[in-house]
Amino acid sequence: MATKSRDDITKDTTLCMSLSARPSNIGTRFHNYLYDELGLDFVYKAFTTTDLPSAIAGIRALGIRGCGVSMPFKEASIEHVDVMHPSASAISSVNTIVNEAGTLHAYNTDYEAVATLLTEHAISTDFEVAVAGSGGMAKAVVAALRDSGFAAVTVVARNSETGRDLAEQYGFAWRPELGELRPQLLVNASPVGMAGGPGGQSESTPFEAAAIEASRAVFDVVAMPPDTPLVRAATAAGKQTITGAEVIALQAAAQFRLYTGVTPTADQVRRASEYSRS
Amino acid sequence: MATKSRDDITKDTTLCMSLSARPSNIGTRFHNYLYDELGLDFVYKAFTTTDLPSAIAGIRALGIRGCGVSMPFKEASIEHVDVMHPSASAISSVNTIVNEAGTLHAYNTDYEAVATLLTEHAISTDFEVAVAGSGGMAKAVVAALRDSGFAAVTVVARNSETGRDLAEQYGFAWRPELGELRPQLLVNASPVGMAGGPGGQSESTPFEAAAIEASRAVFDVVAMPPDTPLVRAATAAGKQTITGAEVIALQAAAQFRLYTGVTPTADQVRRASEYSRS
Repeated sequence: MATKSRDDITKDTTLCMSLSARPSNIGTRFHNYLYDELGLDFVYKAFTTTDLPSAIAGIRALGIRGCGVSMPFKEASIEHVDVMHPSASAISSVNTIVNEAGTLHAYNTDYEAVATLLTEHAISTDFEVAVAGSGGMAKAVVAALRDSGFAAVTVVARNSETGRDLAEQYGFAWRPELGELRPQLLVNASPVGMAGGPGGQSESTPFEAAAIEASRAVFDVVAMPPDTPLVRAATAAGKQTITGAEVIALQAAAQFRLYTGVTPTADQVRRASEYSRS
Repeated sequence: MATKSRDDITKDTTLCMSLSARPSNIGTRFHNYLYDELGLDFVYKAFTTTDLPSAIAGIRALGIRGCGVSMPFKEASIEHVDVMHPSASAISSVNTIVNEAGTLHAYNTDYEAVATLLTEHAISTDFEVAVAGSGGMAKAVVAALRDSGFAAVTVVARNSETGRDLAEQYGFAWRPELGELRPQLLVNASPVGMAGGPGGQSESTPFEAAAIEASRAVFDVVAMPPDTPLVRAATAAGKQTITGAEVIALQAAAQFRLYTGVTPTADQVRRASEYSRS
């Protein structure tokens, strides 16, 4: 264990945290790196729980300033917060709780990050789009696509129940496989390509090579690792790419701003993001 | 703000904390100093709350390892913990909660510290004793005296209700003022001499000069400042003294051991204690 220096923490230091079934170190490292960098008297730590209502009640009662919410708590948190902001209510999914003097405000910075990246990368809303996946992140992607003005979106998911539900909720089409479709924008919001997920370390991609070849842009929201087989295949084929690393950095920066009121620079976010994965 | 280094905190870092109406920095500085010194991957922070049940439920649900409990939560905590250990049940007062995999164990390290100091300072149990005060700390002192074998104890407290109750509970005498009594051991467990307490920065002492002069030993449990007017008067009169700084250091070291399983050396406790007041 290297040199530590926790003896500057005081009663006035502000605690932020996260809740997920299986915490990673990414958020903890990202936020603490920026607290150091910016000289903010905050400290961040990931937690897990088997009692979500008590955990959120504890956040309120202890004055913990902010909490990142991950799987499987994004929907279950809704009934325990006080104010649902549009980013969270749009997709009925909370990934960020901000404690304002005992009132818990809920946001979804994944949704915001996806919408921002579609704009920043100047993806044409005329593009036909396929979204692989039907879980929480797929919901954030599909809602962001709709709210950004995309009209021709197909949800591609083998699970007919969740896939059809998601598509119908936003007025889009569903199909179990991509088949002969050749959309200009391919979005992966499924766990395929995720370390430890289905097809984890393999060369599996959620879209076949012919579809990648026929596309104009590929957006993989899987963040670990950021160079998924899909991103590598898209890059090799000369396509425009947006990675999960961009999503996670942007959404974490949005959380950081909500918790601290401070907006880190793009360079600070980049370095914190690199540090968080190192 | 000096250089910080919080970027070594991870998801596996263990959080300990305290709950009180008006948190001081003493516990936070004491524990974090020793974590640094001993290379333990812990972090400590003081909290306050207006919702004790939810705060304690949060400790359990978030896996917070330990919690120091101060005024006014020492009695109210009892119904929210799972196991009352003898030090806490002896005086129906909790100042330490240890979370063992979701089971909350309660202790009172003030009681233990007072008993230990009476032994370490070789105070004869044949001494007649007067204890000024009738609050939570007076209860810890009176119980420790009884359980250490002292038989001739008088509770001196103007509040006849709490004073008489405390004395009767432990089979001792009560009187509103010391009067003509000249006990060999004088113990202050009242706020007199405490910074910001009654008689705060003044030269008030809870026992008059003649009683100090006639005593053999003086024990002031007031810890802020450690050189109370009573301790200074006793020292000037050549009496053996035990200070509140010793109580707070010993009880904090006991909490530290309960939370971490590590026993700091006397020198480490001394330095952490000095640091916590600096």
